[in-house]
Parts: sequence; C-alpha cells; structure tokens
Amino acid sequence: MSSLTLYYAPGTCAQAVRIALNEAGAEHTLVRLDFKAQQQRSPEYLAVNPKGRVPALATEHGVLTETPALLAYVAQRFPAARLAPTDPHGFARMQEFNSYLASTVHVAHAHRPRASRWADEPEAIAAMQRKVGANMAECFELIERHLDGPWALGEHYSVSDGYLFTVSGWLQSDGVDIARFPKVHAHAQRVAARPAVQQATD
Amino acid sequence: MSSLTLYYAPGTCAQAVRIALNEAGAEHTLVRLDFKAQQQRSPEYLAVNPKGRVPALATEHGVLTETPALLAYVAQRFPAARLAPTDPHGFARMQEFNSYLASTVHVAHAHRPRASRWADEPEAIAAMQRKVGANMAECFELIERHLDGPWALGEHYSVSDGYLFTVSGWLQSDGVDIARFPKVHAHAQRVAARPAVQQATD
Repeated sequence: MSSLTLYYAPGTCAQAVRIALNEAGAEHTLVRLDFKAQQQRSPEYLAVNPKGRVPALATEHGVLTETPALLAYVAQRFPAARLAPTDPHGFARMQEFNSYLASTVHVAHAHRPRASRWADEPEAIAAMQRKVGANMAECFELIERHLDGPWALGEHYSVSDGYLFTVSGWLQSDGVDIARFPKVHAHAQRVAARPAVQQATD
Repeated sequence: MSSLTLYYAPGTCAQAVRIALNEAGAEHTLVRLDFKAQQQRSPEYLAVNPKGRVPALATEHGVLTETPALLAYVAQRFPAARLAPTDPHGFARMQEFNSYLASTVHVAHAHRPRASRWADEPEAIAAMQRKVGANMAECFELIERHLDGPWALGEHYSVSDGYLFTVSGWLQSDGVDIARFPKVHAHAQRVAARPAVQQATD
C-alpha cells in the first residue's frame, strides 16, 4: 500500500485531485465512496474526514481535505512533474484560479444537487435550482474571457487544468451548453485527450 | 506609493488580507470601497477586478484576488514574518483551513447578506436567510472541535488567524453567540489584542 490514499466519488471535484496524482506519477491507493448509499456519512468515513465530503487524501502525516489545498500539495510534493508555478506570483495566480473554482463556481453548481444545504423549504430549493444555469453561465463567461490557453494558466499545463476540466464537466447537468464558451470547450477536449485524465474517469 | 495596493471594504473578508499585510510589516496602499454606493460595481473598479468583489491586491506583476490565494501570497512574499508553515504538509494544512473558511463558512454566511445571488424570489431569499444561523453554528462546531490553540494552526501564529478572526466576527450578525464556542471565542480575543489587527479594523 502506498503512503497516499485518495477518497473519492465519481462525478465530484475529487476527480481533479485524481488527475493531479496521475499526472504527477504518484503511487496512490483509491477508495471509492458510494454517495447513493450515503457512505460519506458513515462512521468509518467520518473518522477519516469529519466533514463527510470528498476529496480526502490520507498521507503519512495525516488526512488533508479541500481541493485547492490538495492540488497545491500534490504539485509541491512531486515537483519534478512541474504541475504548478513555483514563483510567488505565478503560484498565487494558480491559487486564485483554483480558489475561484472552489468558492464561486463549485458553489454555484452545488445549488442544484445540494440546495438543501442552504434552505429547508421545497419551494426555496426549487428556486435555487432554477438559478443554477444562469449562475454557472456567468462564471464561465468570466473564465472564457480570461482563458488565454492552451492551458488554464497559459503556456504550461498545471493542476488547474484537471480542476477546470472537472468543473466544466458539470455544465451539461446544469443545463448549460459548453459550446457557448469556445475556449473552455476546446480546453476540455485538450484535457480529455491526456492519458492521465483518461485513467481518472471511472 | 508602494508596490502593493489593497482594495477593501469594511466588514468583508478583505480584513484578513489587511491583517496579514500589517503582520508582515508590508508597506501598502489602501483603497476603501463604499459598498453602500455600489462602488465595487463601478467601471473603474471592474477594470481592476472584473469579479466586482473584494479583496483585490494590485502588485507590480498584476492584480490578484481570492482571499486564500492572497494570504498565501503575503506569507510567501514576506517570509521573514513567518506567517505560514513552509513544509509541504504544514502549508497544506494552512491551505485546508483557509479554503474551508472561503468555500464553506464564508458561503454559509453569504446566504444572509447576499442570498439574492442564488435565488430571485423573496420567499426563497428569506428561507435561505433563516438557515444561516444553523449553518454557521455547524461550521463553528467543527472548527471548535479541531482548534488546539493558541492559534488556528496550533503553536504558531499564521495568516489563518486573521482570517478566522474576520469570519468569526460575522457570527453575531448571523444571530449566533460566539460564546457557544469557547476556544473560538478565546482565539478571537487573542487576535483582537494584536497591534497589527487593531490597525485593520476601520
């Protein structure tokens, strides 16, 4: 067993961390959680991650959570893979991008499948779900405007690419056609062609 | 004029970055935005930060946004102030903490003052606002359980302390008594006593 274990569920942002581990060539063990069976709320998993969410990455020093933290960690732990800028400003740009995906875009999306986090009444949940498409489109208009490609941060592939690929993969389920954002669309196809990504889709 | 300019508004998470700059002894210029006058949506500010939010930090290499990104940037740019762990695991722990505050706790709070981001109907907005206190309390129960003190990350003061202080300062407006969380409460008093923090409260 390797010293890194990733707890994930298909279709979640944990895919971004899985892609990063593959790109880094990092030996790791995968533990797949069944969200339909509510495995993320089981006592066994809550002992690993009290937040009851994925991703969680068990390391020899303890369990780490939160996608932007894990992406930077994988990049720093496997520097030979060059998955993140190392100068402070370039690193901050990567962090800015990842933090926007986590705090704004992922949150915009979550109001469809997870709306009950923020209100109890069915009418309020339906009202939130109705607005998800418009909010996701607004987020991706901003991303499209600033995407200079070929990769999320410009010339060099980074952990941000697997993250953008993962989040843009949610647009269809949110009722937004990715083709409205030509640069995002081409980026998704470019990322999907990478072997490390193809090994992270089940 | 210094090479760093922080765009902020009182009562927002930009306070965490202001505290970090003060703790670092970093020369910087402050630009205060008037949210009541919607200055964050003015063409002048949107040219600085197209997201129309604070904080934004203008540097000699360009403008950076997103609180967790800015906090790590300030720590890395002023390493002598020792405001962040430098080993990959310790750094990841800090990032995990900051990312949780940004993506979960700040978002939980935002459903009171900014509920209209996620639904249009007044009844849905009211329903979201009703749940904010319970969600914030749940977040702070988790933080309280894992706070080993005296500081957010343990023995050493870091940029996470000003961030926790800023976010815990929102509990009262969300109808949650900070005294329910004795360790968080003591932490807030400890942070409030620091000169760098007292110079970041107007």
